[in-house]
Amino acid sequence: MAKVIKKSSDMAGLPPGTLIHIGEKRNKKPRITIFDYDEKAFEEKEVKTVEEAFPYRDKQTVTWINIDGIHDLELIRKVGEHFHLHPLVLEDIVNTAQRPKFEDFTDHMFLVFKMFYQLGDKGKIKEEQVSLILGSNFVISFQESEGDVFNSIRDRIRTSKGRIRKMKADYLAYSLVDSVVDGYFLVLEKLGENTEALEEEVMLNPSTETSQRIHHLKRKMISLRKSIWPLREIISSMQRGESKLIYKSTMIYLRDIYDHTIQIIDSIETFRDVLSGMLDIYLSSISNRMNEVMKVLTIIATIFIPLTFIAGIYGMNFQFMPELNWKWGYFACLLVMSVVAFSMLMFFKRKKWL
Amino acid sequence: MAKVIKKSSDMAGLPPGTLIHIGEKRNKKPRITIFDYDEKAFEEKEVKTVEEAFPYRDKQTVTWINIDGIHDLELIRKVGEHFHLHPLVLEDIVNTAQRPKFEDFTDHMFLVFKMFYQLGDKGKIKEEQVSLILGSNFVISFQESEGDVFNSIRDRIRTSKGRIRKMKADYLAYSLVDSVVDGYFLVLEKLGENTEALEEEVMLNPSTETSQRIHHLKRKMISLRKSIWPLREIISSMQRGESKLIYKSTMIYLRDIYDHTIQIIDSIETFRDVLSGMLDIYLSSISNRMNEVMKVLTIIATIFIPLTFIAGIYGMNFQFMPELNWKWGYFACLLVMSVVAFSMLMFFKRKKWL
Amino acid sequence: MAKVIKKSSDMAGLPPGTLIHIGEKRNKKPRITIFDYDEKAFEEKEVKTVEEAFPYRDKQTVTWINIDGIHDLELIRKVGEHFHLHPLVLEDIVNTAQRPKFEDFTDHMFLVFKMFYQLGDKGKIKEEQVSLILGSNFVISFQESEGDVFNSIRDRIRTSKGRIRKMKADYLAYSLVDSVVDGYFLVLEKLGENTEALEEEVMLNPSTETSQRIHHLKRKMISLRKSIWPLREIISSMQRGESKLIYKSTMIYLRDIYDHTIQIIDSIETFRDVLSGMLDIYLSSISNRMNEVMKVLTIIATIFIPLTFIAGIYGMNFQFMPELNWKWGYFACLLVMSVVAFSMLMFFKRKKWL
Amino acid sequence: MAKVIKKSSDMAGLPPGTLIHIGEKRNKKPRITIFDYDEKAFEEKEVKTVEEAFPYRDKQTVTWINIDGIHDLELIRKVGEHFHLHPLVLEDIVNTAQRPKFEDFTDHMFLVFKMFYQLGDKGKIKEEQVSLILGSNFVISFQESEGDVFNSIRDRIRTSKGRIRKMKADYLAYSLVDSVVDGYFLVLEKLGENTEALEEEVMLNPSTETSQRIHHLKRKMISLRKSIWPLREIISSMQRGESKLIYKSTMIYLRDIYDHTIQIIDSIETFRDVLSGMLDIYLSSISNRMNEVMKVLTIIATIFIPLTFIAGIYGMNFQFMPELNWKWGYFACLLVMSVVAFSMLMFFKRKKWL
Amino acid sequence: MAKVIKKSSDMAGLPPGTLIHIGEKRNKKPRITIFDYDEKAFEEKEVKTVEEAFPYRDKQTVTWINIDGIHDLELIRKVGEHFHLHPLVLEDIVNTAQRPKFEDFTDHMFLVFKMFYQLGDKGKIKEEQVSLILGSNFVISFQESEGDVFNSIRDRIRTSKGRIRKMKADYLAYSLVDSVVDGYFLVLEKLGENTEALEEEVMLNPSTETSQRIHHLKRKMISLRKSIWPLREIISSMQRGESKLIYKSTMIYLRDIYDHTIQIIDSIETFRDVLSGMLDIYLSSISNRMNEVMKVLTIIATIFIPLTFIAGIYGMNFQFMPELNWKWGYFACLLVMSVVAFSMLMFFKRKKWL
Repeated sequence: MAKVIKKSSDMAGLPPGTLIHIGEKRNKKPRITIFDYDEKAFEEKEVKTVEEAFPYRDKQTVTWINIDGIHDLELIRKVGEHFHLHPLVLEDIVNTAQRPKFEDFTDHMFLVFKMFYQLGDKGKIKEEQVSLILGSNFVISFQESEGDVFNSIRDRIRTSKGRIRKMKADYLAYSLVDSVVDGYFLVLEKLGENTEALEEEVMLNPSTETSQRIHHLKRKMISLRKSIWPLREIISSMQRGESKLIYKSTMIYLRDIYDHTIQIIDSIETFRDVLSGMLDIYLSSISNRMNEVMKVLTIIATIFIPLTFIAGIYGMNFQFMPELNWKWGYFACLLVMSVVAFSMLMFFKRKKWL
Repeated sequence: MAKVIKKSSDMAGLPPGTLIHIGEKRNKKPRITIFDYDEKAFEEKEVKTVEEAFPYRDKQTVTWINIDGIHDLELIRKVGEHFHLHPLVLEDIVNTAQRPKFEDFTDHMFLVFKMFYQLGDKGKIKEEQVSLILGSNFVISFQESEGDVFNSIRDRIRTSKGRIRKMKADYLAYSLVDSVVDGYFLVLEKLGENTEALEEEVMLNPSTETSQRIHHLKRKMISLRKSIWPLREIISSMQRGESKLIYKSTMIYLRDIYDHTIQIIDSIETFRDVLSGMLDIYLSSISNRMNEVMKVLTIIATIFIPLTFIAGIYGMNFQFMPELNWKWGYFACLLVMSVVAFSMLMFFKRKKWL
Repeated sequence: MAKVIKKSSDMAGLPPGTLIHIGEKRNKKPRITIFDYDEKAFEEKEVKTVEEAFPYRDKQTVTWINIDGIHDLELIRKVGEHFHLHPLVLEDIVNTAQRPKFEDFTDHMFLVFKMFYQLGDKGKIKEEQVSLILGSNFVISFQESEGDVFNSIRDRIRTSKGRIRKMKADYLAYSLVDSVVDGYFLVLEKLGENTEALEEEVMLNPSTETSQRIHHLKRKMISLRKSIWPLREIISSMQRGESKLIYKSTMIYLRDIYDHTIQIIDSIETFRDVLSGMLDIYLSSISNRMNEVMKVLTIIATIFIPLTFIAGIYGMNFQFMPELNWKWGYFACLLVMSVVAFSMLMFFKRKKWL
Repeated sequence: MAKVIKKSSDMAGLPPGTLIHIGEKRNKKPRITIFDYDEKAFEEKEVKTVEEAFPYRDKQTVTWINIDGIHDLELIRKVGEHFHLHPLVLEDIVNTAQRPKFEDFTDHMFLVFKMFYQLGDKGKIKEEQVSLILGSNFVISFQESEGDVFNSIRDRIRTSKGRIRKMKADYLAYSLVDSVVDGYFLVLEKLGENTEALEEEVMLNPSTETSQRIHHLKRKMISLRKSIWPLREIISSMQRGESKLIYKSTMIYLRDIYDHTIQIIDSIETFRDVLSGMLDIYLSSISNRMNEVMKVLTIIATIFIPLTFIAGIYGMNFQFMPELNWKWGYFACLLVMSVVAFSMLMFFKRKKWL
Repeated sequence: MAKVIKKSSDMAGLPPGTLIHIGEKRNKKPRITIFDYDEKAFEEKEVKTVEEAFPYRDKQTVTWINIDGIHDLELIRKVGEHFHLHPLVLEDIVNTAQRPKFEDFTDHMFLVFKMFYQLGDKGKIKEEQVSLILGSNFVISFQESEGDVFNSIRDRIRTSKGRIRKMKADYLAYSLVDSVVDGYFLVLEKLGENTEALEEEVMLNPSTETSQRIHHLKRKMISLRKSIWPLREIISSMQRGESKLIYKSTMIYLRDIYDHTIQIIDSIETFRDVLSGMLDIYLSSISNRMNEVMKVLTIIATIFIPLTFIAGIYGMNFQFMPELNWKWGYFACLLVMSVVAFSMLMFFKRKKWL
């Protein structure tokens, strides 16, 4: 989430539909896995060449072709050719700087969005672009690399848990998007925890780095919002667009994830409000501390400066200074000093500075 | 209202419609109460098993089934089965991190929202999720725990006060939502009192904690707004959605609570504006105080520093310092010091620092 | 305008349509005045009981029944019964915490809004709730207490000035709303004068209370906006709602007051912008003054601190300090001091601090 | 542009359509000029009484009646009567506090808006209200006083330059509005120049008055926006309203000035953003300067305070102070002082304060 | 991008459709190049006079006439005449202060927008206005000067790369706009890099100029947004307007660049949020540094001021000061001083100032 925009200028000047891989460079060969199922039968396999996946296009069963790796442009081009994908779609698939978007081509739909997932239990959160092609009886998903939030869906297909095996390809696509949205909750939770920790820090023990931490958290919020906001639009478009590809029974599920995206956006806005408030507190606590420092300086200085002046007077070497010769001069002088100090203290007390 | 988001990641990866109770854990057995009435007859009872409530579905009288406790997933599942509720509805009922929402399933409606109520007369304000199922002749309400804002409705049904016994289930559902909205006014009032108390504090006696109190109050406002805003949408959807379940005579009542939600939102926005203004005052009062402290320091220091310097000069031990031997040297020196101090004071007076 | 929300929680839990007077308690018996007129005839009278006003409902002439005092719930109930008003309307009439609203019941319209007026020529500005019932040939107005902005309308009816006597009840209702909107201009003007006075204060002579005054004025603006904004919606609804009660010839007048409400809202927004700007100036003028204080302190201190140090050196009592025995030691020392002071002054001059 | 709202309360309580001149009082008799033309013929004259202008209403040629001066209510009333204007229109014409508005009365249109123009080449910019009545073959324009932005239009009519003589009254009205919008560009440019000058001042040489200048410029922007924003609405209404009075060929010209108003609004928003940014810079430059002042104070004070203390020690008069009797005591003392001063300087260097 | 508005007042008072060149003055003769192609044939030539380009209007092949230089008003007028362009269009073409706009004249379309391009590889980014006329089989493009972002399109036409030779004039127009939008990404990237560099500067090493740099970057963002926002509207209008000039197959390409404009706008908003956040950090870091300076001053001053006072006491010359005669007086005095200094340090430690 570090960089706000990735390089898009590599593509400037190229004819539209030119495949240019924009994103982290990878050498690994893309991994292609296939899930093919209907209510009764189920098949799972990993294929070496993408051509092995092509026959599934014309089978009546639901097929999920998952491709981990979008840097092999030849592979993408073959898929595009076989499944009749528009060149712009292919361009979007391989461009990881792509803004989440949705395109409805009557016989198939194209979705591209960001996925957040955690590597292992304590791992760092990774961001990755996912593209989905939803046809009448297949879903093709493209990911940047291996590792995703779809394992539970794979398990559900294998064990026929839930209704997924009874439903069509549109439900599979919904399930994938749903898992991705659930991943956003995870990120949101982490940011929420950070926000609360930071809030405590601001209240109890603000340091110089606090404002920078607030800024970092704000940027992460902005970045997350930049991913979720268009995802909301995508789901909204899928609901409104009266495509034959999406069955009526799936509509309520789409409404459900739509509500989830709204909830995430709501929470992000709340966090941003809270973070703005924290900055105000931070600034006022800086001012307060400065005030306290100033008060101590003022009290010490204003008490001792006049006293030192008095001492200075009687440190002068004039030949004729009558007080110097008085017997109780010294003690009178100390007394005067005490009176001055005491009345200063009273003054501060009245001003409520002590 | 402490936590902005509750844990939602527990659900990540589960098939949609899986019942997972998200919320405070409770051991108590859910309490099920039934109110069954029409204009003439009335029956109130508490049942042990939810199955005892099932026959009411097919009676012509209006039935209100209230279930206090949503942690018993088996019970929820049974209710869902008998009343033909969608799995996603059941999932939403048991998920207390649910955003308020509304779903219209032709033969029944589903509403979920937040309720605020006070335990006892001086008790703390509690937040709880309430779900409503409105069928043609029944209302099922799910609450997190016992205790709610519905006692006056129970009394009205028992005593046949108002028009509730003459009306259908939609009026009952409206009455429940109305009571909940009235509960928001209660919270708003409390926050309003706190705001006014805080405003006085800011004006008269701002302390270090003031900015934190403003922040806390702001957060509570944000939290309340997060609950009321979608409730407004819910009521708006009920009005627009031309469901057979809601009779025309109830429409004006819905408009009425819609207006109430608008009024609450208006007030929250007003309070937020006021709180922002208070922060500005607070910050300017800190600056002002700092200014005052600085002025005192400056006045004391600038008067005595030159005087001390003069005293320092005549405290030097040079052998040949003619002034030291003058008879009136000491008094002349004191006079000069007085003149310097006096002209300093004049300078400050002209600068309006005194 | 002091309290942002008035107590609304008194009503919590009561059946909708229950009459509860929310507002300032009054003991005075409500005053009921009747104006009945058509182009030729005119009758004005004050009645003791509301029943005397009932026969006018069925007369063809235009009748304006004005009721000063809404605390007599029995009276309100009787009016409601005779004129077939909805219980929720009656509830809204007696609830002075009501948000301005508009309701169209085919055979009559209901409007409730806030009125601002000045008692006497130099009096304080009062806020009061006004409710209007517009029937086919009558207008009933409810006010909290005597005193309003309608005297010019009464005069126009009496003297048949303007077109009011030639028009129907809808024109009368329009005239009443128009007078109320004119009252808003009055308040706006007062706030405008205060804003300009405050602006001068901020520029020329900002004091500690200035920021509080800005805050107070801001709150008043917020409060006024809270009244005018829904009034705009009301007039907009009256224009759009194609009710038979409002004749086409009156439409242009409604558009006219609609434009006035827009103008008021525009001005309020402008004032708020200006007030926000004033706060910025105020804060920067505080900073500037602090800067000036600091500069004086710095100049005095940095000049005299080194000089005092030099004096301190030659005040030491070491036995062997050659300079002390030089003949011109003292004067050389004074010269060094002058050079130091002078170069300090030059330094400040170069820094543009002097 | 000084006053944000002008007195509107003078009108409170008067029947709608009452003519009250609100604006600067003038004694001069209104000046009435007439341009009457078609493609071939052209007549220009100045008339003494408004009645002389009346016959032009029924001529087929295009007639432009310009009236400089709206304080002669009798004249306005006569015009209104002869041209069948609505009383509210007359009220709006003479009320210079009127918000820009547009009203379509089938057989004529009414427009009122603000005009900005410069008296002479270096004169001050004046604001004036202009009202236009567009009939099928005439345009009546009302101005507050002589002097306007229409001279180039007069020239074009006289010399038959451009297409104005070939077009109908709607094109004349468009031309007038177009000239007025061009006048806004003039004002905008002046404000733009001021903004840039101020920006330079903020960067290079911010003074105490800078924040006040920013505030003044902001207010002027707000004021200009208050005039242009409703003008945009007016032009938009003219485009949408499918009046017979506006020919299709004129539509593209309306779109053109509509685009100009958008451009002006865009620029105003940009300037406001820039001005807000300038205030931030101003405040941070104040803080920076304060910082610098504080640093100098701190460096001088922290170096000399310890040195003065050391000098103070050896200025004490204790009888037994061994150092005083050492031969090199004085020089050792000076050495210690130098070491202290030097290490202080090193400390500041490390802190990057020097 | 330096000036926010360019002079538009030169045009004030001129009849609409008058050609006035507003922009940088140039003497060079405009350069006219022609690309004429269909799937099979291709012709490229540079012509001396614009008349040579006229015959292409009526050819069936796609023709792209590019004119570098809009200061030759006679040339523009000839083009306008031959291609039947509206006078307002010609006016817009030669006015480089024109806001980006779109106009659909059934038989041709007019687009005007801003282009950003880099001269050479490391050159400065230049802004230039581009106008496009899209007819049924031709595109005319007007640029301010030579140099643009269209070279890759020229190459594609020459080498028949991509689909451009197979498509109609609408695809050519799309390609030109697409190249321009790609140019925005370039600018955005540069601004993005500057933002990140500035962010690092703010975090690690904020200087006095930092706030000015933030301001400059903000202004550039505002300026870029001012160009891209109306471009988005243009593309949106082209999509919605059901013109015959744009074929259905081109629609998806328009949607694609529409998405790109949205992405650019999103990124600009993100950058603005980030820049605002940076200003907050900058201000808080100034406060923090001031705080640190103040603390050092306070610590040094509060430790030494009391010590100096003690030294001052025993520097007094009273005849009777018993301590002076004590044998261990001096050392006792030093001990007291150490104790005072030590307890001061403890106090600061407890306050966490050390």
